[in-house]
Amino acid sequence: MKTLAVTKINKIRNAKRASYDENTIHTILDQGLIAHVAFSHDGDPICLPMVYGRIDDKIYIHGAKATRMFKQLKQGIPACLNVTLVDGLVLARSAFHHSMNFRSVNIHGTAHLVEDEDEKYDALVAITDHMMPGRWDECRDMTKKEANATSVIALTIEQAAAKCRSGMPVDDDEDYALDHWAGIVPITTQFGEAINDDQLRDGIPVSPSIEKITGPTR
Amino acid sequence: MKTLAVTKINKIRNAKRASYDENTIHTILDQGLIAHVAFSHDGDPICLPMVYGRIDDKIYIHGAKATRMFKQLKQGIPACLNVTLVDGLVLARSAFHHSMNFRSVNIHGTAHLVEDEDEKYDALVAITDHMMPGRWDECRDMTKKEANATSVIALTIEQAAAKCRSGMPVDDDEDYALDHWAGIVPITTQFGEAINDDQLRDGIPVSPSIEKITGPTR
Repeated sequence: MKTLAVTKINKIRNAKRASYDENTIHTILDQGLIAHVAFSHDGDPICLPMVYGRIDDKIYIHGAKATRMFKQLKQGIPACLNVTLVDGLVLARSAFHHSMNFRSVNIHGTAHLVEDEDEKYDALVAITDHMMPGRWDECRDMTKKEANATSVIALTIEQAAAKCRSGMPVDDDEDYALDHWAGIVPITTQFGEAINDDQLRDGIPVSPSIEKITGPTR
Repeated sequence: MKTLAVTKINKIRNAKRASYDENTIHTILDQGLIAHVAFSHDGDPICLPMVYGRIDDKIYIHGAKATRMFKQLKQGIPACLNVTLVDGLVLARSAFHHSMNFRSVNIHGTAHLVEDEDEKYDALVAITDHMMPGRWDECRDMTKKEANATSVIALTIEQAAAKCRSGMPVDDDEDYALDHWAGIVPITTQFGEAINDDQLRDGIPVSPSIEKITGPTR
């Protein structure tokens, strides 16, 4: 078990919710679907949702070379990536102590363009398989043109931390005697049944990667 | 129906996914649970998940006065707020054309501290009721001490845009003849049944706001 160094930028003020354990951080990242990536553009902060993939201690995002985001990020600028899993509403007796149960990771670092062709290929596999494990091998092969049109940006999971809350509300001592209902409402994200593309050729069954997470296609 | 002005900062490159219609933007904001807020701190971008509320064309976030985020934001610095609803995985015949169905809003602007006491109170109601409509009135009254410990920051929904994708994958023409399965997998976020606080006094039923979105408490 590896613990990341705590520095000024990744230190979480509320120590009891903080974790710098690499396994905890990787597990949250692997369970998320989208990340929010922040960077600065002409002095203005920009925050965009992105799909992503992880290989060891690297997070990869991809996009068309022509986009503002990738033109910026490939220059090696500071970026911040957040993945948040929302687990439930926390309903206290006072509005003040309302909260959410969540597991969240922040990664701070310098985004850099992945130039090595093998690393880039592996990153694209990781991003596709993050969305749906095993999906890359079910697709037709990537063309050279597609690879050329795509940029991959990496961030190292080093200046990072997890912040999590779980469990019941924490009310002021004297409020526990009140008549107000308190508790939690769990939140779950679910995959529904796969829906065939309108133009799917007859007789093509839903592929194994999709069957694994959903029911049979309608 | 009001349409927001398109400027350099809120313009979305992929025009067919963009909307500047205020109703569309408000509807997405009202359906989200958490926002991601980006701002700059000592030159580094920071991106944090926050609960939020909306009143008309203002988005409000709140937090303890002592936090780094609120110390920064109250100075009136540029901020970017994103709310993203993920509706499904879009699985194409090529990995390249994989995508997500989503509805997303970005708001760019200058965060400012809410100093007016009435506006601040209304904002705190909006934030609590955004999480669970009607919940504010079910809580014990806010104390002066709680109000004093809390900062509220506002962002105006002006330099804003929605970006949405829906529907089936769009593959290259020649790929529709291939044998690869393609389609979508819907994603839904669901509230489970409310769970009573361990320390809830006997005989207190789950409150109406919670019953409205979930089943009876266990």
